[in-house]
Amino acid sequence: MSTIDDLAKHLATSNPVEIIGSALAQFGPDCAISFSGAEDVVLLEYARQTGKPFRVFSLDTGRLHPETYRFFAKVEEFFKLKIEYCFPDAQEVQRMVRAKGMFSFYQDGHHECCGIRKVEPLRRQLAGLRAWITGQRRDQSPIRASVPVVQLDGSFVGKDAGPLAKFNPLANIPGEEVWLAIRGLGLPYNELHDRGFVSIGCEPCTRAVLPSQHEREGRWWWEDATKKECGLHQANIAKDASA
Amino acid sequence: MSTIDDLAKHLATSNPVEIIGSALAQFGPDCAISFSGAEDVVLLEYARQTGKPFRVFSLDTGRLHPETYRFFAKVEEFFKLKIEYCFPDAQEVQRMVRAKGMFSFYQDGHHECCGIRKVEPLRRQLAGLRAWITGQRRDQSPIRASVPVVQLDGSFVGKDAGPLAKFNPLANIPGEEVWLAIRGLGLPYNELHDRGFVSIGCEPCTRAVLPSQHEREGRWWWEDATKKECGLHQANIAKDASA
Amino acid sequence: MSTIDDLAKHLATSNPVEIIGSALAQFGPDCAISFSGAEDVVLLEYARQTGKPFRVFSLDTGRLHPETYRFFAKVEEFFKLKIEYCFPDAQEVQRMVRAKGMFSFYQDGHHECCGIRKVEPLRRQLAGLRAWITGQRRDQSPIRASVPVVQLDGSFVGKDAGPLAKFNPLANIPGEEVWLAIRGLGLPYNELHDRGFVSIGCEPCTRAVLPSQHEREGRWWWEDATKKECGLHQANIAKDASA
Amino acid sequence: MSTIDDLAKHLATSNPVEIIGSALAQFGPDCAISFSGAEDVVLLEYARQTGKPFRVFSLDTGRLHPETYRFFAKVEEFFKLKIEYCFPDAQEVQRMVRAKGMFSFYQDGHHECCGIRKVEPLRRQLAGLRAWITGQRRDQSPIRASVPVVQLDGSFVGKDAGPLAKFNPLANIPGEEVWLAIRGLGLPYNELHDRGFVSIGCEPCTRAVLPSQHEREGRWWWEDATKKECGLHQANIAKDASA
Repeated sequence: MSTIDDLAKHLATSNPVEIIGSALAQFGPDCAISFSGAEDVVLLEYARQTGKPFRVFSLDTGRLHPETYRFFAKVEEFFKLKIEYCFPDAQEVQRMVRAKGMFSFYQDGHHECCGIRKVEPLRRQLAGLRAWITGQRRDQSPIRASVPVVQLDGSFVGKDAGPLAKFNPLANIPGEEVWLAIRGLGLPYNELHDRGFVSIGCEPCTRAVLPSQHEREGRWWWEDATKKECGLHQANIAKDASA
Repeated sequence: MSTIDDLAKHLATSNPVEIIGSALAQFGPDCAISFSGAEDVVLLEYARQTGKPFRVFSLDTGRLHPETYRFFAKVEEFFKLKIEYCFPDAQEVQRMVRAKGMFSFYQDGHHECCGIRKVEPLRRQLAGLRAWITGQRRDQSPIRASVPVVQLDGSFVGKDAGPLAKFNPLANIPGEEVWLAIRGLGLPYNELHDRGFVSIGCEPCTRAVLPSQHEREGRWWWEDATKKECGLHQANIAKDASA
Repeated sequence: MSTIDDLAKHLATSNPVEIIGSALAQFGPDCAISFSGAEDVVLLEYARQTGKPFRVFSLDTGRLHPETYRFFAKVEEFFKLKIEYCFPDAQEVQRMVRAKGMFSFYQDGHHECCGIRKVEPLRRQLAGLRAWITGQRRDQSPIRASVPVVQLDGSFVGKDAGPLAKFNPLANIPGEEVWLAIRGLGLPYNELHDRGFVSIGCEPCTRAVLPSQHEREGRWWWEDATKKECGLHQANIAKDASA
Repeated sequence: MSTIDDLAKHLATSNPVEIIGSALAQFGPDCAISFSGAEDVVLLEYARQTGKPFRVFSLDTGRLHPETYRFFAKVEEFFKLKIEYCFPDAQEVQRMVRAKGMFSFYQDGHHECCGIRKVEPLRRQLAGLRAWITGQRRDQSPIRASVPVVQLDGSFVGKDAGPLAKFNPLANIPGEEVWLAIRGLGLPYNELHDRGFVSIGCEPCTRAVLPSQHEREGRWWWEDATKKECGLHQANIAKDASA
């Protein structure tokens, strides 16, 4: 898919507003921003700065922090938009929790639960899109260290079973700069960040980190650092493994 | 349905263990205890004391407190059982929250949200039963003041579209006694009770009460006291209205 | 001291405003309200309703909850007054905590620490008064069950080494009524009451209680219920012991 | 005082254990570690590693977090030592809080309150010493950027009105390394660090910081960054001002 490769070269040193602007220009309403309820709120601000209309979706796994739900409401109010929430399938959730309880991930890993509560709802949402925009950054974890600004998403299928482009406008942006932007621009943020949380996911699988501790140590802390993807960005691991 | 009326008379002054024992004897695996994640944990203890096998289900609305999920796990461990969790339908939840956001109940009342997250999953669960056992108590609210020990559930339909019996073994038990039992027997309890919570439901719709404040003031506090049923026990209101 | 006995008879069925009014009329600036930072804030409201000037003091033990200090500030603002804080002696505190650490009361009882942090500062304050007003209520604990509305304080000495009158205007008032007054009149209250705390003292020696649990079980819970006075109201125990 | 200058040169590149060892060798029981209840707990570990006996003191201002008091107890237990707590003078505290309330620092700055609750008790403690050891680090704030490893303390007077040496064994150590040591060695730490707190002082004057925010922004945040010393390390500012 030469288009994506060309784009990747073209945008390699562009700033986030330019990258998002390019995604929106090319894909319009077939493109949407994936918003996690954490510091990737800057994506929405950068999208706003393009002056173009944009869609936002979030994965409500049914196990998010109460603070995250309140943050969603603040974000909808602040940016005057409606988030397209994606909710897991009742039968799949029931099958898992009736068999294994509410905290099986502490025993046999987070992949089954993430698969049901995050990956399947995401698959459903992406099946209606041709491109999505994520908040992945290279400094977030070892397995995100080579995330490109644009890539072909090999893990999911887009609209009409077609290809899916994945834009990572923050790939080159260090976390410090994201936070300077949030504070400098007065963007709303998840109140958990006031309590030592850096990276934020589901409530049972997220915790605050100590001073100087890497943000990813606050996620799935009982598991090996090289497996810490929930399946949304599975390609990072696949690529890594084949390397 | 003369059987229910006879039973109601027969059990009117029975203790909770006798009432649950009678339900389990008559309905066996077609009967299940509805466990809310709060002080109705005593129902499980009384069921255990009958010596008979019993089923337990809970409504996981996707908006419960993290503390309530942890309490579910403690209860499963303590009583050595698996709770049959009931989860709301993805399409119904998405339709509501994409249109109205995550907190629409503060604007237009809790009935729509309770309908999707509690009543429909309950309806699904009850459709496989002939009887259910609840923790309703007469001292909980004005509209529960005449809850009988056994009643025909006119709001839901049971197995094979048949009638459904509803047992309320705590109807005559004051809250003080329930708490004496929990503390005296060392039963696990929801840690929110350590922080001023008495009645516990979904996180955004529950709050702690002040000393001497009625427990029901901690639920849907922005609404009128006479409407504070979520639809699980709708008959209480219907009966009241027709009176 | 016949005056006190006459007063006690005279005020036995008076309401708190009348009792406080009588104390202020008789003792003027030689009388002060002892405010604990909890629900005895109603004393200040009743004093305000007398229309007379009144003094308020509080014992800052150096170990109060941050929430209690914030509540003091709210009370000063709400009633437009300055609280006369009483602070423990540095040498006494140092002697104890250097020898035994910060939590010796869990080992050998709360009397030594209360003696240094509460009783001595109180003794200093009372030495400048002829009367004090407290929030003691009969329903607070077994050893307060016969607290009179007015009494001669046999445990402390007043101004010029003279006698000291002690008024307990809430003696006959149940806790429920105190809370109805606080909520009904919109008085400020300690935010700990929003988190399950009823009776409030020092941070390490106070905890929230469960629903239906007696308020005094939240104080010095590792000790015997019949010894739960900190020395401020020592006479309650002495009298009891001699009975 | 040539000795200090010589020492400073001699120890300029020494590690903390060597610096503390040198202080203890030279001053013995006339030297003590000042422990703030935060990440300077590593000082105690380094002192332990010297194999020499050492004294520790802490300033209990009467307004510390409950978590800090609990941490003091954990530290005493872990290192098997007694902390020499220093408590403020009752008359001084009462004079201030009776006149201005409990939060006057938000209005007219933290220096008056720090003066009474920290500096005077420290002055009393230092008057019995010839040397003290602090946890100051150059990366903590702009006004600590040139803190030397050893210096003559020009702000306080030592035993017998003599000179006072001040050792800063962490001067050259970045915060990241301090935290690696705490986690790597399994040292106890203040539980506030689990909730986003980095630098920790008194409760009303300390707050958690956001991800990537400088630790000093969590202290006296309503004041100018160049004035953020409480008087313990006043010389840093004086020196700076004269520069």
